[in-house]
Amino acid sequence: MLKKIKAKLLVTVFGGAGTPVLSASAGAATETAQRLGCRIYGAWHGLQGILNEDFGDLTALDPSILEKLMRTTYAALGTARDKPTDEDGVKIARVLQAHGADGLIYFGGNDTAEKINIISKAAASIGSSMSMIHGIKTVDWDVPENIFTPGSLSAVRYIAKEVRWNSGDNWSMQGVLIIVVMGRNAGWLAGSAARARRRPDQGPHLIYCPEVDFYESRFLSDVKAMYERYGHCLVVVSEGIHDKDGTLIAEKDAAALARDAHNNAVLSGSGLDQRLCSLVQSGLGIKRVRALTLGAGTRSHDDVAPIDLAAARGVGQKAVEYALAGRTGSVVVKDFHSNPSGGFRLEYDLVPLELVADKTKVMPRRYINEAGNHVTDAYLEFLRPLVGLELPEDFQLRDHVKPVRKLLTN
Amino acid sequence: MLKKIKAKLLVTVFGGAGTPVLSASAGAATETAQRLGCRIYGAWHGLQGILNEDFGDLTALDPSILEKLMRTTYAALGTARDKPTDEDGVKIARVLQAHGADGLIYFGGNDTAEKINIISKAAASIGSSMSMIHGIKTVDWDVPENIFTPGSLSAVRYIAKEVRWNSGDNWSMQGVLIIVVMGRNAGWLAGSAARARRRPDQGPHLIYCPEVDFYESRFLSDVKAMYERYGHCLVVVSEGIHDKDGTLIAEKDAAALARDAHNNAVLSGSGLDQRLCSLVQSGLGIKRVRALTLGAGTRSHDDVAPIDLAAARGVGQKAVEYALAGRTGSVVVKDFHSNPSGGFRLEYDLVPLELVADKTKVMPRRYINEAGNHVTDAYLEFLRPLVGLELPEDFQLRDHVKPVRKLLTN
Repeated sequence: MLKKIKAKLLVTVFGGAGTPVLSASAGAATETAQRLGCRIYGAWHGLQGILNEDFGDLTALDPSILEKLMRTTYAALGTARDKPTDEDGVKIARVLQAHGADGLIYFGGNDTAEKINIISKAAASIGSSMSMIHGIKTVDWDVPENIFTPGSLSAVRYIAKEVRWNSGDNWSMQGVLIIVVMGRNAGWLAGSAARARRRPDQGPHLIYCPEVDFYESRFLSDVKAMYERYGHCLVVVSEGIHDKDGTLIAEKDAAALARDAHNNAVLSGSGLDQRLCSLVQSGLGIKRVRALTLGAGTRSHDDVAPIDLAAARGVGQKAVEYALAGRTGSVVVKDFHSNPSGGFRLEYDLVPLELVADKTKVMPRRYINEAGNHVTDAYLEFLRPLVGLELPEDFQLRDHVKPVRKLLTN
Repeated sequence: MLKKIKAKLLVTVFGGAGTPVLSASAGAATETAQRLGCRIYGAWHGLQGILNEDFGDLTALDPSILEKLMRTTYAALGTARDKPTDEDGVKIARVLQAHGADGLIYFGGNDTAEKINIISKAAASIGSSMSMIHGIKTVDWDVPENIFTPGSLSAVRYIAKEVRWNSGDNWSMQGVLIIVVMGRNAGWLAGSAARARRRPDQGPHLIYCPEVDFYESRFLSDVKAMYERYGHCLVVVSEGIHDKDGTLIAEKDAAALARDAHNNAVLSGSGLDQRLCSLVQSGLGIKRVRALTLGAGTRSHDDVAPIDLAAARGVGQKAVEYALAGRTGSVVVKDFHSNPSGGFRLEYDLVPLELVADKTKVMPRRYINEAGNHVTDAYLEFLRPLVGLELPEDFQLRDHVKPVRKLLTN
């Protein structure tokens, strides 16, 4: 009797926080697996899902369900920031082996690439040669070998819109507003807030990125100058700004911040917003100073950038193709070309995990102005075709209204 | 020689923070003034604009500019939270008299109605009988005599979407998330977050409004129960929650909060979010607890509810009509009727300022559940036709995926 040849099996799992297009990567991976006749499992809520053998079989998902999965704004498989020990790595490899997996596809950022490295070594140590694929995703944009990272372009749209709306509100109240945005090690997202600005008197008037050391005295004189010039001032800072010694501004004079599994300070709720607010209030004596930290909406909302979605799907598809070819590495979004016809083309590549794992791609200095308090036109020109969102010209009523002659005052 | 009869003059000004439809009120007031052949000035940035005679002449605004004004997401005339002294009131009345104003139209919430009361008395004291009109606007929904307040319906759309997006993100990370929303004295906005929920396992699992005293011990046992049931928990609280003695939770164990001109505690940046976060972390030992305060985007964004826009325009139009009739009072949105044909009709009224000034309309108790930790279906049914935004059914991949049999664990 002939033994039935079982189709190859891939396991997919998410690491780190979600993005608005992460589920599209899983959807495209599933679609590709269906097309190439292999089976595909999803592990629920990160590596713990593998350790607990908590798998869902995605192989037979209906096209209508795949369509819904592609449009899910959050990590539909669940996710986690857990970092495996070497021992966990061996356990994970054994679970995958027991289920007959031919490859693992792990979607995540640079932390996740490091995790797959650990699992990959553990798998080799128990004699498994299964394929280990890292599929790039992160809103932070800060992973080497990628022109951008799937999730980041949609995050930029959220940030630009929030900054635009808050800019109008702040103008109307004539205050100082400080907005803290995501980006622990790089200023790609903070810098992208400049897309909200369509006229010089409009915010953000100042942008501070982690690529440049942050000096409180310079910050105060910058804010003073803008506030005096415009009567209001909107500042955007990256959560990861730090002084010249590398100490996070969020951590100065504060209780030590909690650390996550990757020894990253937990910056959400760090109080950076209120710290900068107090600094401006006490340092400049300005009355109306407010601060705002953009939350998880940044990475989980429904205004998806079309190129972001295409890249997330492309990474999902390539991840399956590379895994079935028995390869190991990181699937990156290597390049982007816009066609004269209006369309675009994305290029992908598989690179060694070492080029990506725990590595950060910071903004080139030419994308940040000389004073280190805003971005350059070069950065805006780089962003424009990728992000694809054009906010309307700002309307200022005062430009269209005749002033009335004063009768009592002079 | 016949002296040319000068057209009547109205002056319009904004008080308090903006809303996504406040500029539409000013636009409709201008349109109505044009139609009725009167002149209209706008004062820049609140009462200070009147004190400084900083007026713009809106009378001749082009329809295309009015159209842009109607779509401006923030207070296009600028605004302020300033409260006039009796002396300021007299100065304001004298400026208006000097310019020959026949009426003042002041758009704002219950604080603003009190301000116009002060100006109205000052005007009477110098022998002016000019019309004093308060036009209702506030995202807070909490002003008596109004079925809703222009601005509130659009705020609900923002809140519902942010809560929905954050709910997905929080599910994926399996944590506790606390979202603080606007609403100092009433829970209309906090309660409206329930519109984000389409299934029982979805957030918000708990909602706390200022109408019900807040007990930390009950809060903790509520969070514990939900977290144990669902593996994650999303809590929405109003910024104004307080204990049984009326002490703001934001103010407990904290330095006294700053106060605005109306002696309201400044709740933005109060740290309520982090205070509740720490409470859950220390009280329940849950690892992943995050907090988020929704910012000025709530009152300044572009997802305008059609009924909200219609009401803002209606209030602007009625304000001019009442002012030209020489009347004084508050223009309120008295009632709402939906037509079987799918359209709707709004009713307005002019009520004495005393009915509105410094008065708060809290949620009726039947809109809050018995335990005081969520809203009732009655509130959701009340909101539905007004807000008009239907979020899509939440997609849960797990509902569509066959679990894989465990091989190593049992």
